Amino acid sequence: MIVSALLTSVGINTALCVLFFACYSILRKQPSNYKVYVPRLLAEGISKRKKRFKLERLIPSPDWVAKAWKLSEEELFSLAGLDGVVFIRTITFCLKIFTFAGIIGILVLLPVNCWANQMQDFDLADFADNSLDVFTISNINSGSNWLWVHFFAVYIVTGFICLLLHHEYKYIASKRISHFYSSKPQPHQFTILVRSVPTSSGCSVSDSVESFFREFYPSTYLSHVVVRHTSKIRSLLNESKNLYQRIAQLRSDPSQRRHKLGDCFGQNDKLVDHYRKQLEDIEENVRLEKSEASLAGEEARAAFVFFKSRHSAATASHMQQSVNPTQWITEPAPEPRDVYWPFFFESFMRRWISKLLAIVATISFTISFLIPVVIVQGLVNLDQLEVLFPSLTSILTIKFVTQIITGYLPSLILQLFLKVVPPVMRLISSIQGYISSSNIEISACNKVLSCTIWNVFLATVFSGSLLNKLSLILDLKAIPWKLAVSVPAQASFFITYVVTQGWTSVLSELFRVIPLIGSLISKPFTSHEHEIDVPSIPYHRDVPRVLFFGLLGITYFFLAPLILPFLLAYFCLAYIIYRNQFINVYAPKYETAGKYWPIVHNTMIFSLVLMQIIAAGSFALKKLQPASAWMLPLPVLTLLFNEYCRQRFLPIFIAYSVDSLINKDREDQKDTGMAEFYGKLVIAYEDPALLPIQYSSNSDSLITPLLS
Amino acid sequence: MIVSALLTSVGINTALCVLFFACYSILRKQPSNYKVYVPRLLAEGISKRKKRFKLERLIPSPDWVAKAWKLSEEELFSLAGLDGVVFIRTITFCLKIFTFAGIIGILVLLPVNCWANQMQDFDLADFADNSLDVFTISNINSGSNWLWVHFFAVYIVTGFICLLLHHEYKYIASKRISHFYSSKPQPHQFTILVRSVPTSSGCSVSDSVESFFREFYPSTYLSHVVVRHTSKIRSLLNESKNLYQRIAQLRSDPSQRRHKLGDCFGQNDKLVDHYRKQLEDIEENVRLEKSEASLAGEEARAAFVFFKSRHSAATASHMQQSVNPTQWITEPAPEPRDVYWPFFFESFMRRWISKLLAIVATISFTISFLIPVVIVQGLVNLDQLEVLFPSLTSILTIKFVTQIITGYLPSLILQLFLKVVPPVMRLISSIQGYISSSNIEISACNKVLSCTIWNVFLATVFSGSLLNKLSLILDLKAIPWKLAVSVPAQASFFITYVVTQGWTSVLSELFRVIPLIGSLISKPFTSHEHEIDVPSIPYHRDVPRVLFFGLLGITYFFLAPLILPFLLAYFCLAYIIYRNQFINVYAPKYETAGKYWPIVHNTMIFSLVLMQIIAAGSFALKKLQPASAWMLPLPVLTLLFNEYCRQRFLPIFIAYSVDSLINKDREDQKDTGMAEFYGKLVIAYEDPALLPIQYSSNSDSLITPLLS
Repeated sequence: MIVSALLTSVGINTALCVLFFACYSILRKQPSNYKVYVPRLLAEGISKRKKRFKLERLIPSPDWVAKAWKLSEEELFSLAGLDGVVFIRTITFCLKIFTFAGIIGILVLLPVNCWANQMQDFDLADFADNSLDVFTISNINSGSNWLWVHFFAVYIVTGFICLLLHHEYKYIASKRISHFYSSKPQPHQFTILVRSVPTSSGCSVSDSVESFFREFYPSTYLSHVVVRHTSKIRSLLNESKNLYQRIAQLRSDPSQRRHKLGDCFGQNDKLVDHYRKQLEDIEENVRLEKSEASLAGEEARAAFVFFKSRHSAATASHMQQSVNPTQWITEPAPEPRDVYWPFFFESFMRRWISKLLAIVATISFTISFLIPVVIVQGLVNLDQLEVLFPSLTSILTIKFVTQIITGYLPSLILQLFLKVVPPVMRLISSIQGYISSSNIEISACNKVLSCTIWNVFLATVFSGSLLNKLSLILDLKAIPWKLAVSVPAQASFFITYVVTQGWTSVLSELFRVIPLIGSLISKPFTSHEHEIDVPSIPYHRDVPRVLFFGLLGITYFFLAPLILPFLLAYFCLAYIIYRNQFINVYAPKYETAGKYWPIVHNTMIFSLVLMQIIAAGSFALKKLQPASAWMLPLPVLTLLFNEYCRQRFLPIFIAYSVDSLINKDREDQKDTGMAEFYGKLVIAYEDPALLPIQYSSNSDSLITPLLS
Repeated sequence: MIVSALLTSVGINTALCVLFFACYSILRKQPSNYKVYVPRLLAEGISKRKKRFKLERLIPSPDWVAKAWKLSEEELFSLAGLDGVVFIRTITFCLKIFTFAGIIGILVLLPVNCWANQMQDFDLADFADNSLDVFTISNINSGSNWLWVHFFAVYIVTGFICLLLHHEYKYIASKRISHFYSSKPQPHQFTILVRSVPTSSGCSVSDSVESFFREFYPSTYLSHVVVRHTSKIRSLLNESKNLYQRIAQLRSDPSQRRHKLGDCFGQNDKLVDHYRKQLEDIEENVRLEKSEASLAGEEARAAFVFFKSRHSAATASHMQQSVNPTQWITEPAPEPRDVYWPFFFESFMRRWISKLLAIVATISFTISFLIPVVIVQGLVNLDQLEVLFPSLTSILTIKFVTQIITGYLPSLILQLFLKVVPPVMRLISSIQGYISSSNIEISACNKVLSCTIWNVFLATVFSGSLLNKLSLILDLKAIPWKLAVSVPAQASFFITYVVTQGWTSVLSELFRVIPLIGSLISKPFTSHEHEIDVPSIPYHRDVPRVLFFGLLGITYFFLAPLILPFLLAYFCLAYIIYRNQFINVYAPKYETAGKYWPIVHNTMIFSLVLMQIIAAGSFALKKLQPASAWMLPLPVLTLLFNEYCRQRFLPIFIAYSVDSLINKDREDQKDTGMAEFYGKLVIAYEDPALLPIQYSSNSDSLITPLLS
């Protein structure tokens, strides 16, 4: 790719950025879009819908940028929890390392690449026609001593990143602990989940749980709630919710509707009556099912067990309860709001099999995802495309079209396909038998990350057929060499990838394209102000995205330092936009208290080792053997550093220690409100399906319009 | 190799077997050898040294075989603990699977190999000159449908082995639990070890431990013992022991000595006085060191902490104690007799570094061990040797010499080198920071196992230079193919390996060659009857040895079924001989309650998967693609089976469950002797170096000869 193609791409995207920012500034002020752009503020009652029209609504203003910029970490913590803080710190972490790497890359490596020992002259006169390869390491002669500059850059940047990683791990671990110390008593701290409860004949699951914990935890056991099979009730409730909404739609604005539909008014009333009858039937069914569910027969072999102290709950969740390790399996309970009720596998075998299925599904999805990647590669290698479709030759000779196709289209197609990955992976994780949304999203996050790295990075890098790729991967010895050959060759693709995929993805996050379209379509039919659905940030989509750009930056910083300014622009955009979204849009659905950080840390270590392997391969390829050999201690040191961090910090993210648990428990003993808390504890883990019906045919909002 | 060379080797070894058995029968009856052959009985006082000579002493008798054969599992358990039972069950397990595989192999596979579609005619007339390859799978034509017989044999044997593995795992797990239930209160069940104890200034380790456990385990904490640095005292005590023995030697039989040395008598007395003075000096030093060691300055940052119940000790050892995971590291304490005092690393970093060093040492030792393997290979390939050393040609033309060299010498050399592996690996494991001999031996067992498999099996199989080998291993895709080519080619080597290495190793175990030689050399200088050193069985040497033959059998049963009868003979010998040694020689030094079984299980699974990969490669090599393809589900199923066993049984071998701990604790509460037990508990974990001096200059045995 030549410089002008890149400039085209950058130009289009910069224009898009400005346009999107301006549009957003205007759109977010329209009361009709409040539900899309400030649902959180609406739900909290901070922002009221102003009906009066003002001119300033139509003038773009940058005040939201200033607001997002000024947000302190404490405010962010109160808004988005520790997970939000960790997410933003991931972005600032990337900003820090790429500022540092950028200074080295642009001021030292780029001039070296361009002017030292050039194979290809950097042509200042005809700047735009230069190949991008002029700016990469490929431009340096074999055996040139200038490569030692790259060598030291790799060492220095690795050292800097490791230092920063250690600092961040320590900081977030301390945040996690202080968050625990400062938190009020929370139900999940006093609760464990027990699964695979064995039952003898004539003895219900509830009795079994009661007698087991009364026997072995006599002084600390409080009570328990048995989980019930409620899939039927859940589907009925969904049906009733749909019906309710349909009725509500029909009733929503009778005057307007009458005006529009005219003669259909009678029919409308008939429909409503029909739906109401259906709703009543379903309610009857739900009531029947509920009374059945409360019988012993519908008990799942799982229960939430409550304890009097955090320490005893933690102890019970850590220890193997039964001689048979496949029975009485305990684990810490998730927050009540975080419980994932639909897939409540209680038996050991079923969970095991579903886990295996999930692994198989993940691997086959990841591999089959190569197809779009191959399409994208075809577009980058236009020559191949011309051979395949000779009819395109005439179009492809137009310079602008070629530049669009090679510079913009490939990564746009890839981006569209990548949009599918997070929801699919979340689905796979949800059938894996996790009991909480947080665990599902953490697991999905890992899956999305490996799928993205594999497909976008490794598969793009190792060009060739699918089988060819697999056989390359199996030949471990050849990997550094292959990486060194193919990674620098893909530099121009990834530079445009950052500009297109990166910038547009973060802009579409700001613009909330899909919710906006959804709201535009559904607007005529809804008018319920009371029901505002505040979304939560899909960490399993956004964490891998940010981390993937981190990976790109780390691996390419010494190969093609030109990528760094574009990456910095991406992270700056992300920094402002995500902070803005935390203020206006997202409300946390759960609190893992920083459990995403180990994923960030591991990915950074992986990126570093990958970069070091590529560096070793590159120096060998450039026939600078000593540099290649001296590169080998670096991955070893990096992995040792990682192992140290794993020992030093990881346990803090897995469980709380005895001293903090007991200290916290003792604090509570002074608290007079604990009796009340224990009372509430028992009802905290009620299955939402068993709560009183929310969408009833007798509910106010359905009756009100009838009266009006 | 041809049949006659094998027969030579078998002949030599069978003769050796008979000879050794006869010699053993005679030697074990000589009172002077009691210390070598029945130290256990001597120590228990069952066998007395009979001074009177009887003729029957010189006639070999097989009564010991009958005695070993009749031993029941309960008796074995009482003699050698659960570990001994597990070891013998490993041998019977191998006997069972190789009987089953042997029936299939000899009755079905061997005839198929010999007569079906032979490439090379099996020549009954000149039986001895047939190549051993006639009996292997190599003899079958490419694409022959007879290979399906091998295919089904692999499936059937895999199924049989998995069934048996499941049964054994279940049986040994139940034995472990019932052993726990039937055991009396033991100190290590109530004790944890805490390391990396942080100390503040002006506060001793002891105070720190006391205050921590008093605060967080107020109701269950009993007391503690701080570990002290005693390496100086230990070396002084060793010195004093040596001096003591030297004096005792000089004094042992003054009359005899006077007779022999005549004029030296005066000098002898002088020497004794000199040594006594030295001994007194050392004792003085020891006393000084001991009083110093009891001061706070010599405290290690580690302590044994005692609890009132098993459950609370288990809880404390399972949970992370401190917010900083590198402090207050707890683990279950080993049995008092099992504690390994010399390397008591207390700090987190020091243990971490020593662990890394141990890994590096293991890997480099394993790789450098290839040198003897290459020598052995040279002997097998005589042609290469002749090229290297032309002078040998004349000797090598003699048929008998050639047969000895190719059939016997290579595996003998390998055996001698392999003798070095277990002690070296034990040394490496001991610096790794384990606190108990049992853990050291379990870790050494794993190391010896991987070293043996790597060096003897994989490295012998992949012939070529060291670098060549490494590059082959890195090319994952080519491995099944390479294995399929080279493993059958080494069949004859491994058949003779079983006959020589296997049979002689187990015979030398019976004969106790090294202790016998040691006793013959030291006999003239010792006469202390009271000091009998009952050895313990070195599991880290014997478990890998037995398992390696299991691996050989499993991988070769379908390639060269001829190996099976020799293997069965080996396991029969091992069965009788090890049972005999448990009765007469070894006393258990520790009780891991069956923790060696998971190692056995894992090795069997590894063997199965290796065999299946070789099978898939062989069928592909023989151009029977469908059989090769249908072989692929088998390793997947085997690994799934292993994963199931890991989930179902492994936790039982790691820790005891809450219900068994609490039930056992409740049993104790009825016991009136618990107060006394708690009292003893505190002194159970005294460092032996701090106990009263055993070899004192004032002790009776030194004074008695002076008075006589």
